[in-house]
Amino acid sequence: MRPINVGLLGVGTVGRGTWDLLSRNAGEIRRRAGRAIRVTHVAARSAERARELVGARARVCAHPREVTRAADVDIVVELIGGTDAARELVLDAIAHGKHVVTANKALLALYGNEIFAAAQKRGVMVAFEASVGGGIPIVKALREGLAANRIEWIAGIINGTSNYTLTEMRERGVSFEEALAEAQRLGYAEADPRMDIEGVDAAQKLTILAALAFGIPMQFRRVYSEGIAKLTREDIAYAEELGYRIKLLGITRRAPRGIELRVHPALVPARRLIASVEGVMNAVLVKGDAVGPTLFYGAGAGGQPTASAVVADLLDVTRLITADPEHRVPHLAVQPEHLARTPILPIGEVETSYYLRMRVLDRPGVLADIARILAARRISIGAMVQKEPGAGEKQVDIVMLTHRAREKDVAAAIAAIERLATVVGRVRRIRVEELL
Amino acid sequence: MRPINVGLLGVGTVGRGTWDLLSRNAGEIRRRAGRAIRVTHVAARSAERARELVGARARVCAHPREVTRAADVDIVVELIGGTDAARELVLDAIAHGKHVVTANKALLALYGNEIFAAAQKRGVMVAFEASVGGGIPIVKALREGLAANRIEWIAGIINGTSNYTLTEMRERGVSFEEALAEAQRLGYAEADPRMDIEGVDAAQKLTILAALAFGIPMQFRRVYSEGIAKLTREDIAYAEELGYRIKLLGITRRAPRGIELRVHPALVPARRLIASVEGVMNAVLVKGDAVGPTLFYGAGAGGQPTASAVVADLLDVTRLITADPEHRVPHLAVQPEHLARTPILPIGEVETSYYLRMRVLDRPGVLADIARILAARRISIGAMVQKEPGAGEKQVDIVMLTHRAREKDVAAAIAAIERLATVVGRVRRIRVEELL
Repeated sequence: MRPINVGLLGVGTVGRGTWDLLSRNAGEIRRRAGRAIRVTHVAARSAERARELVGARARVCAHPREVTRAADVDIVVELIGGTDAARELVLDAIAHGKHVVTANKALLALYGNEIFAAAQKRGVMVAFEASVGGGIPIVKALREGLAANRIEWIAGIINGTSNYTLTEMRERGVSFEEALAEAQRLGYAEADPRMDIEGVDAAQKLTILAALAFGIPMQFRRVYSEGIAKLTREDIAYAEELGYRIKLLGITRRAPRGIELRVHPALVPARRLIASVEGVMNAVLVKGDAVGPTLFYGAGAGGQPTASAVVADLLDVTRLITADPEHRVPHLAVQPEHLARTPILPIGEVETSYYLRMRVLDRPGVLADIARILAARRISIGAMVQKEPGAGEKQVDIVMLTHRAREKDVAAAIAAIERLATVVGRVRRIRVEELL
Repeated sequence: MRPINVGLLGVGTVGRGTWDLLSRNAGEIRRRAGRAIRVTHVAARSAERARELVGARARVCAHPREVTRAADVDIVVELIGGTDAARELVLDAIAHGKHVVTANKALLALYGNEIFAAAQKRGVMVAFEASVGGGIPIVKALREGLAANRIEWIAGIINGTSNYTLTEMRERGVSFEEALAEAQRLGYAEADPRMDIEGVDAAQKLTILAALAFGIPMQFRRVYSEGIAKLTREDIAYAEELGYRIKLLGITRRAPRGIELRVHPALVPARRLIASVEGVMNAVLVKGDAVGPTLFYGAGAGGQPTASAVVADLLDVTRLITADPEHRVPHLAVQPEHLARTPILPIGEVETSYYLRMRVLDRPGVLADIARILAARRISIGAMVQKEPGAGEKQVDIVMLTHRAREKDVAAAIAAIERLATVVGRVRRIRVEELL
């Protein structure tokens, strides 16, 4: 069979990784696909860098539209990142009948619905395994491997920078700022780390996971997102004392009245496998009604791991390229006419458990006041740690874990507790996820 | 589109699970596949039990060949287990142009090559996700998700009974016999647990994983296999003291001169994620050249988890049913004409590290003799624990971890050590896997 021709947009870390992998494992890939897959056209911001990479083995185009419109290109691989130019180029490739492979989570979270509709109309595929979890084949697992299940929930460590930072804070006892600086020094965090630290990157990936798990459209703007910048060494130490670790989780769950979609730090029982996922590694825990809990673990970023997913997509598209569109795996797991309109729950309606830490004056009756406020909102306490005050200290930390309660009731209780004259400063609130 | 008709052979745990899952999640499955998947024919050893399960919703056939030959059956699901009758029925289904889904690892490990050749010739698919790791989509991950990689090695906890037994021994400090009795009491182990405990079940699954990872034929008879029955509480405690846990691993690795294929207990560093996989859970760690280490975790057995994989296969076959055979995913990951003839290494040629435990007389010069024997075979010692003898005791345990050495050199050294007059009894030897 004739080789499949690929047009490559972008020669950054992942673009270079993809080029290298297709060259290095060409034999293995051909053995699997039954035909060769080769890059024939390349475009990049710097044509010089592109030329350096590919030499005379592919045509370097001055404009990316030469790639998206080349008559002999079968699949366009979009690895330029960002959303504006990427959106235009992906839509242009689709309009010209090209299949698309992309690693661009921001593009899909924001414009996925538009892109999939265009692809559906034109009868081409858009593959995006590399957009979540780097080389972990989690898109395929959700869309195909676990397709028999009614997915109940997903909880993922899907941002390596945040996880590295939290691991450093716990293992070395350093502050958030110190841990982040170390991540930057090692190249695990960008110069501007806000997308990672504030949970935006994780929210984009969670948008994609939720769509695949529940067969719903992409709804990035409805994700509740809270980052890790406010976490302190004290919280991490108290969590450990209680048998928990703090992780930045992306969580989506089918609740009775809608779907939860939220990114925030959470206490996770230390004995759960996902609690032991450290450093820049990613892991996605999926609970299906038949399979039970399953976990998928691996490198969430980096040129080679991400290229592993890009090339797996190229193999998939190659295999399905001659299939009728209705026999291909649907973009969002379910046939487009069956996408569900299940509402996304506002965060106030979410029920979970909470870690509450407050600093109080060491006086009789303080705890009774706090307990009364919680009880009035039907929030019950599961575990509590109260430290003896140090010599000469007049303030003491109270840490409690609540049973499941509704977020808006907890918020109201916290506001009332903060109004007590015996409570100093703000109450720290971190959600607890038992993941069972 | 018309529904896909399934013929079900067997209504044991997995057969019942498959029937239930197809009924319970019929809507979700239809939303994904774009068409309904329904069981129309059933056969089982006990027609009565089959009738009890399906009522009037499917035809209960007196003979399984009525199912494999029914004109309106598209896919035959083989869940009767065993190898003789299963082989005949699967080949009969193929001969009659049916696609096959099976959970039968023994059948595939022994007769997979014959079955895949027959399927290839007839242009039908044989899907077997449920044969390894229960509901964990590891077959799909190896064959599709990681298809861009040159797989370097796989290490898996792929037998739940053994893993449960080892977990109990470590956590509760009980003997092998006590732990196994508990597993039997809870239904995690068969009345005759030899297939699990002696590593046969794991060897069958490893045969399948190796074929997928390396694109080689099934070679069950070349698997080296050693069970867990000889492990003692002492070994588990010493391992823990050295920072390791003992797991029954199935390991396959691309070595310079061939492929390693072996099942045996191994010490694994406690900080590795796979070391924390406890109880009846399964996990497969895959090292690819691009993706790095990835881990897939979940329930390795049980009616519902296994049915999750069976029904995922039904969805896959449904999607590919109209595709040309050459565009389908190949049975053993690579196109049949590209299967490799790489030799399987005999266990003596395998290189790994070793845990050695020996009981010696508490006399000067004993350790020097042992060290000299090891050094003569270029085996170097990485760590050592020597306990002080108890009051009045004249014997003492020496435990050592070696650096990497060749199995046959270690075997020769052990024989020489056992011949020393100062060494009491046999030397315990357990392999150590760093999994890096």
